[in-house]
Amino acid sequence: MRRSRYFLPTLRENPAEAQIVSHRLMLRAGMIRQSSAGIYSWLPLGHRVLRKIEQVVREEMDAAGCQEVLMPAIQPAELWEESGRYHDYGKEMLRITDRHERPMLFGPTHEEVVTDIFRNSVRSYRDLPQNLYQIQWKFRDELRPRFGIMRGREFYMKDNYSFDIDHAGAVRSYNKMFVAYLRTFARLGLTSIPMQAESGAIGGDYSHEFIVLADTGESAVYCDRAWLDTDPLAMGIDYEADLQPIVDEWTRLYAATDDKHDPAACPVPEDGLYQGRGIEVGHIFYFGTKYSKAMGAKVTDPDGAEVPVEMGSYGIGVSRLAGAIIEASHDEAGIIWPEIAAPFKVGLINLRAGDAACDEACEALYSRLVEAGVEVLYDDRDERAGVKFAEMELIGLPWQVAVGPRGLKVGTAELKARAGGEAEALSFESVSARLIGG
Amino acid sequence: MRRSRYFLPTLRENPAEAQIVSHRLMLRAGMIRQSSAGIYSWLPLGHRVLRKIEQVVREEMDAAGCQEVLMPAIQPAELWEESGRYHDYGKEMLRITDRHERPMLFGPTHEEVVTDIFRNSVRSYRDLPQNLYQIQWKFRDELRPRFGIMRGREFYMKDNYSFDIDHAGAVRSYNKMFVAYLRTFARLGLTSIPMQAESGAIGGDYSHEFIVLADTGESAVYCDRAWLDTDPLAMGIDYEADLQPIVDEWTRLYAATDDKHDPAACPVPEDGLYQGRGIEVGHIFYFGTKYSKAMGAKVTDPDGAEVPVEMGSYGIGVSRLAGAIIEASHDEAGIIWPEIAAPFKVGLINLRAGDAACDEACEALYSRLVEAGVEVLYDDRDERAGVKFAEMELIGLPWQVAVGPRGLKVGTAELKARAGGEAEALSFESVSARLIGG
Repeated sequence: MRRSRYFLPTLRENPAEAQIVSHRLMLRAGMIRQSSAGIYSWLPLGHRVLRKIEQVVREEMDAAGCQEVLMPAIQPAELWEESGRYHDYGKEMLRITDRHERPMLFGPTHEEVVTDIFRNSVRSYRDLPQNLYQIQWKFRDELRPRFGIMRGREFYMKDNYSFDIDHAGAVRSYNKMFVAYLRTFARLGLTSIPMQAESGAIGGDYSHEFIVLADTGESAVYCDRAWLDTDPLAMGIDYEADLQPIVDEWTRLYAATDDKHDPAACPVPEDGLYQGRGIEVGHIFYFGTKYSKAMGAKVTDPDGAEVPVEMGSYGIGVSRLAGAIIEASHDEAGIIWPEIAAPFKVGLINLRAGDAACDEACEALYSRLVEAGVEVLYDDRDERAGVKFAEMELIGLPWQVAVGPRGLKVGTAELKARAGGEAEALSFESVSARLIGG
Repeated sequence: MRRSRYFLPTLRENPAEAQIVSHRLMLRAGMIRQSSAGIYSWLPLGHRVLRKIEQVVREEMDAAGCQEVLMPAIQPAELWEESGRYHDYGKEMLRITDRHERPMLFGPTHEEVVTDIFRNSVRSYRDLPQNLYQIQWKFRDELRPRFGIMRGREFYMKDNYSFDIDHAGAVRSYNKMFVAYLRTFARLGLTSIPMQAESGAIGGDYSHEFIVLADTGESAVYCDRAWLDTDPLAMGIDYEADLQPIVDEWTRLYAATDDKHDPAACPVPEDGLYQGRGIEVGHIFYFGTKYSKAMGAKVTDPDGAEVPVEMGSYGIGVSRLAGAIIEASHDEAGIIWPEIAAPFKVGLINLRAGDAACDEACEALYSRLVEAGVEVLYDDRDERAGVKFAEMELIGLPWQVAVGPRGLKVGTAELKARAGGEAEALSFESVSARLIGG
């Protein structure tokens, strides 16, 4: 993509309304714009990040045996009357009356809709287990939306719902999601820690929150330092195998949020205790037959008896992850994207646009990289070098390549990793090889 | 994907509520389920189709130089007050009041939001042209939703918005979309015909509807038979070149919908006139400064004067296309997917699941195809062959491979194209080669 044509309205000044770093940087980097309180448009750079994150989430859901669906945003109130949540849910639910005066709502979650689909479609234990997921915009009418997309009203979420014939099956489904979540956040370059959690409005017997560590996180967290050295991607996962030992291993270590941490009762000695801050990015629930009983979602078991199906639900804040990655990975100059979530892999800077030799060298490198499938943002504008460097630092692409007259005389360009390290003068050949290979 | 694990609730009977073939087949094939009037969930098979169609639309938008964004579903009413449409739009607009009693709405279209983004971001003609698109769920509160997803209330749409400094630029943008639309529908296996149209609620000077031909289409269309022989994919398109000659060539031929066709005035002799039925799947508008003037979206021109930006908007009904393809391509037994929109390319039928030789041969073929990147639905269930064949016909995958004991004895499987032709007994080697190669 050529910068001269790219819709990238960056800001030089810090927007006054942004209190936290991700909000500030997302506005400054032209990723988002507010439309109304807690409601944002995602501009091209932000949209690319959102899609990258979504794709990682999708791959891990698919790998764990989930199947993708898409349920409607607008739900009929009557389903929530059936489950008993319509009056409980409070003002966060955006209630709507359609032209025929029917009460509807903009879905804050989809337990009722998916249970309705299930009860109309599945009759027998032979069709279980099932695990359906969607990635979709949801709405919660927050009293005080703030922190940009981190606590917005319209937000992008992956939610899924498992259906099993019995408790043991439901635990297997829960464990799969537990492992898939650890993998998902790790692939996005985040250290996530599962913590036992309250079930809140979803209800249920068993629940974990996944908190990613970030110095600027919203809540204080305490955990065994051993967490920091564990890598969920180090082991291969067979989702058909028994995952209980892995889950046990992962839940063995101490971890607690502020409201649950009791220094007096903490089993970890002080020098082994990590105290930091974190951001909730995922939540998993096992709630058994709460919805299936209320809504009559039954299947026949092997003995021919009709039993309510065992369910769980699982959420990841996809748009929130964009903010969480920034909170966890930035410096004074701007964002530092991990490659997997970066809007482009490479920022190519023409230090003297209009100079025939610079233009030619940049065009050749740009074509070569694009043809090799590398995503490049090429700053071809007639702007000062300082402006271009500052913008590249701000938007945080993993690699910067600068091409100028001085280097060109000796046949080199400068390659620099955004995450740190010095710029290296390398031949164009080496630059291509490094960026195409890596 | 193994059929035994796939969430595919097919129906044997025709649902009484479905009046048109696409609605009937989408319900029967387990693609969709109604959640409330005109509002549907997309189950795994339907969701795969939706994503395939979306990807074609995205590729053609990207090729034409558009950039993807995502604007919010929930819009503030005040933007529509500015444009003057809030009170005009009528009951199709789903109006919402949030918890702070602010009037909001579920976006039926996004001219206001995108104009707001533009006016806050772009100041100079040097940053033009721009063309921003999104693919997103929209809501129109139809008085009588019907025909399944063809006239639903919540629907998936690609909409984009062009911004140019002057009329000539706006026409260039319009022409790009004209060509991109023809290419998009052609790639989806549809014959589309652009027809001059009224501008309706969007307003504007110049507008075309794109109608795809289908015998079961909603409206009568008349056109020069020469349309039927034209192939928009036959020529390479350079979006940087002047597209006016191509647009002129395409609009030279006669085409009119029922309400505009006047037999007495028709320039095409009767034997050259095609009379058929069609479905509107796209609509493009040039409306100049209608929104930019009302909302103050101005840029400086090369002379330093502030001028309102010239705009157009362009829509494709992505969910509607799923129905339109079915209307255009089905038979008595079910859907006939073109490969590009098919949920899977191949249906593999194990004619005797449980038989060791059949299981082994199927597993080997399944693994081989999946490893080669071919999307396969493998019917591994313990069901009668007739049930399996009927379901494959119904869901319409482009290729069927049947493996049974009789063929296995001589080392063959049966390969059949859903679109027609006899089943061919082929070696497993040949079956793989045909499906991987083709």
